Amino acid sequence: MAKAKAFGQRTAAAKAKQKSGGPQKEVNWINLAISVAIGVALWFVPAPAGLAQQAWHMFAIFAATIVALIIKPMPMGSIAICAISICVLTGTTSLKDGLSGFGNSTIWLIVIAFFISRGFIKTGLGSRVAYIFVNKFGKKTLGLSYALAATDLVLAPAMPSNTARAGGIVFPIVQSLSRAFGSRPDDGTANRVGSFLHLTAYQVDMVTSAMFMTSMAANPLAVQLAAEAAGIEITWVGWFLAAIVPGLIALVVVPLVIYKLNPPEIKETPGAAAMAQEKLAEMGPMTLAEKKMIAVFVLVLVLWIAGSSIDLNATTTGFIGLSVLLLSGVLTWDDVKSEKGAWDTLVWFSALVMMAGQLNTLGMIPWFGELMSSLVGGMNWVVAGGLLALVYLFSHYLFASQTAHVTAMYAAFLTVAVAAGTPPMLAALALGFFGNLNGSLTHYACGPAPIFFGPGYVSQGKWWTIGLVVAVVNVVIWMGLGSAWWKVLGLW
Amino acid sequence: MAKAKAFGQRTAAAKAKQKSGGPQKEVNWINLAISVAIGVALWFVPAPAGLAQQAWHMFAIFAATIVALIIKPMPMGSIAICAISICVLTGTTSLKDGLSGFGNSTIWLIVIAFFISRGFIKTGLGSRVAYIFVNKFGKKTLGLSYALAATDLVLAPAMPSNTARAGGIVFPIVQSLSRAFGSRPDDGTANRVGSFLHLTAYQVDMVTSAMFMTSMAANPLAVQLAAEAAGIEITWVGWFLAAIVPGLIALVVVPLVIYKLNPPEIKETPGAAAMAQEKLAEMGPMTLAEKKMIAVFVLVLVLWIAGSSIDLNATTTGFIGLSVLLLSGVLTWDDVKSEKGAWDTLVWFSALVMMAGQLNTLGMIPWFGELMSSLVGGMNWVVAGGLLALVYLFSHYLFASQTAHVTAMYAAFLTVAVAAGTPPMLAALALGFFGNLNGSLTHYACGPAPIFFGPGYVSQGKWWTIGLVVAVVNVVIWMGLGSAWWKVLGLW
Repeated sequence: MAKAKAFGQRTAAAKAKQKSGGPQKEVNWINLAISVAIGVALWFVPAPAGLAQQAWHMFAIFAATIVALIIKPMPMGSIAICAISICVLTGTTSLKDGLSGFGNSTIWLIVIAFFISRGFIKTGLGSRVAYIFVNKFGKKTLGLSYALAATDLVLAPAMPSNTARAGGIVFPIVQSLSRAFGSRPDDGTANRVGSFLHLTAYQVDMVTSAMFMTSMAANPLAVQLAAEAAGIEITWVGWFLAAIVPGLIALVVVPLVIYKLNPPEIKETPGAAAMAQEKLAEMGPMTLAEKKMIAVFVLVLVLWIAGSSIDLNATTTGFIGLSVLLLSGVLTWDDVKSEKGAWDTLVWFSALVMMAGQLNTLGMIPWFGELMSSLVGGMNWVVAGGLLALVYLFSHYLFASQTAHVTAMYAAFLTVAVAAGTPPMLAALALGFFGNLNGSLTHYACGPAPIFFGPGYVSQGKWWTIGLVVAVVNVVIWMGLGSAWWKVLGLW
Repeated sequence: MAKAKAFGQRTAAAKAKQKSGGPQKEVNWINLAISVAIGVALWFVPAPAGLAQQAWHMFAIFAATIVALIIKPMPMGSIAICAISICVLTGTTSLKDGLSGFGNSTIWLIVIAFFISRGFIKTGLGSRVAYIFVNKFGKKTLGLSYALAATDLVLAPAMPSNTARAGGIVFPIVQSLSRAFGSRPDDGTANRVGSFLHLTAYQVDMVTSAMFMTSMAANPLAVQLAAEAAGIEITWVGWFLAAIVPGLIALVVVPLVIYKLNPPEIKETPGAAAMAQEKLAEMGPMTLAEKKMIAVFVLVLVLWIAGSSIDLNATTTGFIGLSVLLLSGVLTWDDVKSEKGAWDTLVWFSALVMMAGQLNTLGMIPWFGELMSSLVGGMNWVVAGGLLALVYLFSHYLFASQTAHVTAMYAAFLTVAVAAGTPPMLAALALGFFGNLNGSLTHYACGPAPIFFGPGYVSQGKWWTIGLVVAVVNVVIWMGLGSAWWKVLGLW
């Protein structure tokens, strides 16, 4: 609570300062000192027996970076630049190794997906999809929520920023629908439709984020960490197959649950379909650019799904898709250069992957794995793995970023789960999914959370209560029904 | 001429379209077809004896890319993305090798230098430096031109975009000085001071670009190609030492030559110093941000110069400088994400370095080197090397981009020069310098050229005539006096 408030205040203050043209203070020196102090303290602690000094030093820098990602003395990118500088300057890694993350193919998959997703926004195709669904399913309020879920689902495979997807495309439509039905946050009309739609649109975004390797920026980070920490190779289609059944069930169930717990006062919305039709008429027939965008989207999806069979790497597919978008004029080179989210992700992702890779190469992760094996070996893996997954999910109350959460806990939890005997691919995927579903819990859980919480349709108490229920529902769906599906797939 | 006109027209047309919100056509299909046709034709030609098929395929893609860089069917970045896609999709390189350029340390040196240089613009320090020099030396028109040269020189080591340096900082001051002295392009007053100042500011920018590894984006490309093609390791300080003597002489002589050939009608400009003083008064005392910027600039320069002695890589120094700028709040992370020039350079540079590296690894460059040795071995290297340097310089009449020129010709010319017996480091550096000095020739030679030519103070005939004379003067200074200095340094 205190954390979220401080977070909100700082953002507002920063914006105000920016507007006034004054200097932007984006470095919080106290939090920076805390991060550095932890790193320095660890650095001078002798390495545990069986671990090289250099590996321990790498861990000290990594730990300081994780603390910084959590308490945010600076933006993630700045932290990443400083972390790389320190790794290289202290000789903990060579310059070549320090820059190795920038050439990582998993990172470029997500960078390229950011560029491709710009096409949805630029061409207007994203909004058109939303209006088509609202027009089809929007005669009732519940139908409206499914229309928003369908929009989010359709865009998710090639739109790795859930903030851009839910915040950029769905949120404006939620806002205008709420206003159209006379539902405002501050005059007692919040519950007409606004409260229900804001909550539902946010919660389904957490589900779609879990469903594809390319629907959330931290998913490939989990994939990369799984490879580094446990030698597990998760493919695009492997992630997709495991998530599709529990994901679709969750997309059906979650809006129903919220509908029960927080029923909208207005239940019939014939006006919404009419409004959507009007918007579609305004947009006119589909433009050539939108058609090209659809073609590229289908091409990329087909190649991602067929990739394992035809030995085509998902990143190569991404490059093909981007090339076609540039050649066909859907995107200009300036669109690519201006896609700040992609460059941001390139930098923080590269620093984290580089450090995780070095921890592995230098022996820290194997050492930790052996240590855990001796501690948890012989436990019942179903109990151990299940408990680990639950702790992993609910510990997100302590995080204001899913990337920070994955970085801090994914590799360690996966190592322990595997050491306890959990089938490695099962553990890797389940933790990957839960790293998205944990967004349900709070209004500061991830990028889209403050966007949907911000307008004030939903009180904090309601957000947390419903968030907790949705999280439990997701646990039941993914660990219960999901486990059965994963058994069918042969994951355990 | 036709080329330059087409270039200007296209840019203007593109801008107009962008404003009207219509589709931007940035792909020229005819030029694209030409590039692709050349690549496809080469691909199906059998590889020359002694060369692996894969190396020849790599060369076919590389050749098509070079043609594309020259005839520009698309922006450089788009060409780079397509080139990487084709390399990987055809299996000519693995995906890992295809992305290897992105982790190259030379590339990150220049990317980071772009970020650091943003600090000069953002803090206003760049303009302040210019006004200080104008205030000191600007009592005469000739002095003014030295003030502009000094500004450019001071900023050059940490500002790798000569377009940003000359176009962003010096050009606005040239414009306002010209107007202040009643010199306009279209009413017969161009020669009062405007014509002289525009020409001189441009020509000295070509000299400062040649003086530092980090003062032009294509310089590190030459460094990288020298390493790939001939195993020559040029350090930051090695480049600097070789260039400093001929560079400083050229900075003194070139304005004098232009002063003789194109004398300004107004020779005394006491008002300029007064104007600069007024501007400085307006700016007020130096801000804290400017002082921090100076500190970082000095730190980076000292470490670049001392780097070889203390075994600190220039890229590591760049990371330290950027970290300090972010920590001290001179730059925000958003400044970094928004620095399009840096991301642009990262992409095209990575593609080119990757392809050059693969040509070397696959055996094309060694094969070419041996072939050349057998052809030119036994020639007098002074004659051969000198002729190659001259052909390299004057062939820039055919190029509208110095990067395209370096990519297309640097490695081949260096290989031939070395095969003829030219001392490798001498050849590598001389070609590196000439890759900048060739900008003198035309009004489409490189980024800053159309900026200074555009306002119309200088006719095309005058630009070309004076450009040719300045190029010859530079040849005399760099090959004549420079050679003596390089003898002192032990380069031959």
